Amino acid sequence: MQRTDLNSLFDKAIVNVNGNLTTPQNAQISVFDRGFLYGDSIYEVTFSDSRSVVFLEEHLDRLENSAALIGLPLFYSRAEIKTEILKTLKQSNLDRTYIRIIVTRGDGNITLDPLECKNNNLVIIVRPLEPYPQNWYQEGVSLCFVSIIRNDRKSVDPNAKSGNYLNNVLAIKEAKERGYFDALMINKDGLVTEGTTFNIWIVKNNTFITPHLNSGLLKGITRTKLLEICREKNLKFEESELTPSDFLDADEVFLTSSTKGMVPVNKVDSKEFDVNSFKNFQMLKGLYQELIDSIKSNEDYRY
Amino acid sequence: MQRTDLNSLFDKAIVNVNGNLTTPQNAQISVFDRGFLYGDSIYEVTFSDSRSVVFLEEHLDRLENSAALIGLPLFYSRAEIKTEILKTLKQSNLDRTYIRIIVTRGDGNITLDPLECKNNNLVIIVRPLEPYPQNWYQEGVSLCFVSIIRNDRKSVDPNAKSGNYLNNVLAIKEAKERGYFDALMINKDGLVTEGTTFNIWIVKNNTFITPHLNSGLLKGITRTKLLEICREKNLKFEESELTPSDFLDADEVFLTSSTKGMVPVNKVDSKEFDVNSFKNFQMLKGLYQELIDSIKSNEDYRY
Repeated sequence: MQRTDLNSLFDKAIVNVNGNLTTPQNAQISVFDRGFLYGDSIYEVTFSDSRSVVFLEEHLDRLENSAALIGLPLFYSRAEIKTEILKTLKQSNLDRTYIRIIVTRGDGNITLDPLECKNNNLVIIVRPLEPYPQNWYQEGVSLCFVSIIRNDRKSVDPNAKSGNYLNNVLAIKEAKERGYFDALMINKDGLVTEGTTFNIWIVKNNTFITPHLNSGLLKGITRTKLLEICREKNLKFEESELTPSDFLDADEVFLTSSTKGMVPVNKVDSKEFDVNSFKNFQMLKGLYQELIDSIKSNEDYRY
Repeated sequence: MQRTDLNSLFDKAIVNVNGNLTTPQNAQISVFDRGFLYGDSIYEVTFSDSRSVVFLEEHLDRLENSAALIGLPLFYSRAEIKTEILKTLKQSNLDRTYIRIIVTRGDGNITLDPLECKNNNLVIIVRPLEPYPQNWYQEGVSLCFVSIIRNDRKSVDPNAKSGNYLNNVLAIKEAKERGYFDALMINKDGLVTEGTTFNIWIVKNNTFITPHLNSGLLKGITRTKLLEICREKNLKFEESELTPSDFLDADEVFLTSSTKGMVPVNKVDSKEFDVNSFKNFQMLKGLYQELIDSIKSNEDYRY
């Protein structure tokens, strides 16, 4: 069995565990933590650029929403979490970072009963964010619909960004084994929901269309920002019920994620797309980049 | 926030992390572990009595089955896992213990892609197993059907005993908040599956009936053993599709779990049962106790 040297794998990374800054190799959590035992945790992933955290308030809003959706009491205040994030970033001395914030339902007795929860464990992972491969953005990536059905909202609501991610692990595993970059997941009614770590969009007749939240998916922050841009700029858009066949019939397809941004899709199942023809995608991508650039000047999220 | 002193909470407990024996307070796992990040892990819970592990082979069989169901490669051999369990038990010097065995998809880069997994983390928790409250067994416990729907087999198969347990956490939370001991969960088709950490049974006209595996549930080891006893002793039994109304109409109701054994149920929703009238339950419980007593003499699982 090949053990990983986490300090060399995550060179220059820094981890905050309940306020204590440490190296990746020393960043540990109790085996009695409910995040470890049950995936009973919530998390957020964002990034910083030019020493400024992108959409920090929006991510903290969503963290609080995830906590509410699974009834996880937050013993850290929003201000405390923000302070710890900025403290970790400052210590990293990195300009551009990946930021993962995890809050668990704490540790204590081994019992499924969450009402015995008396504390949280807060983990913040900061590491250098290298640019993703240029060919993702120039040539696009391939996706396929997989047999794994997205968790139902009445079982584990996909809109709670939780530590129960096996559903998505199984989906990407199937896609990778079939030679695709990643997976698209449908719900039990056959409606398209989202990818494993991203929202999905199509363009049809110059209208931007993304699955409606009622289909059961995470309310992505990039997704929300793009809908706001569409509204402001009077671009045609819809949140709709989409089926896989809508993708085969689409003019353009792209995915959105906080860290990856907007990535064109060159293939859905066996249907291929010419990403060089994605005019609407390119136009919206330009507007989104303008938004990202404009927020870097916000002093509240600088470190 | 109230921090837990795990050494005093788990007095006399001992934890094995990848072969190293340690105290509860020092038993830690990397924050980069996939079990912590995604609930990407499998586990088993059993117990020892009179310094002998109960149904060890059956639990290791199921661990291997869970691994297969989620495509988790096992880098520890079965013999190695068994050796580590017995080593931990021996070191504990306890006669009667709760045993939790957790195997995760290891640690490494932060990526959902499970094909990058190069190792496992193996955690074995051993602690004294105090008898559960006598009134559970004498007076019975109360259960209610909750609004949380059991994970679908096509999303995260409940027959894989995995670290994705939020579905069950949400179910027991709802039951506790409504004043019940624990929850019963139905699937998306309205069929009864199981409790949050136990299988469920009814008796009707002297026939033992438990939900069919096709309804989406964990193949409990106590469940399997009881079905074997029924077969051997020519007792009437069925694995069937059961609806909540079958429970309201039942003569007897009980739950089964490896550690709790067989526990009578005195209430399902608003319907009450007189557990003193549970003749079939008591008879089967006697036969099960004989089985448990007989296996304690197996030298292979002694420590």
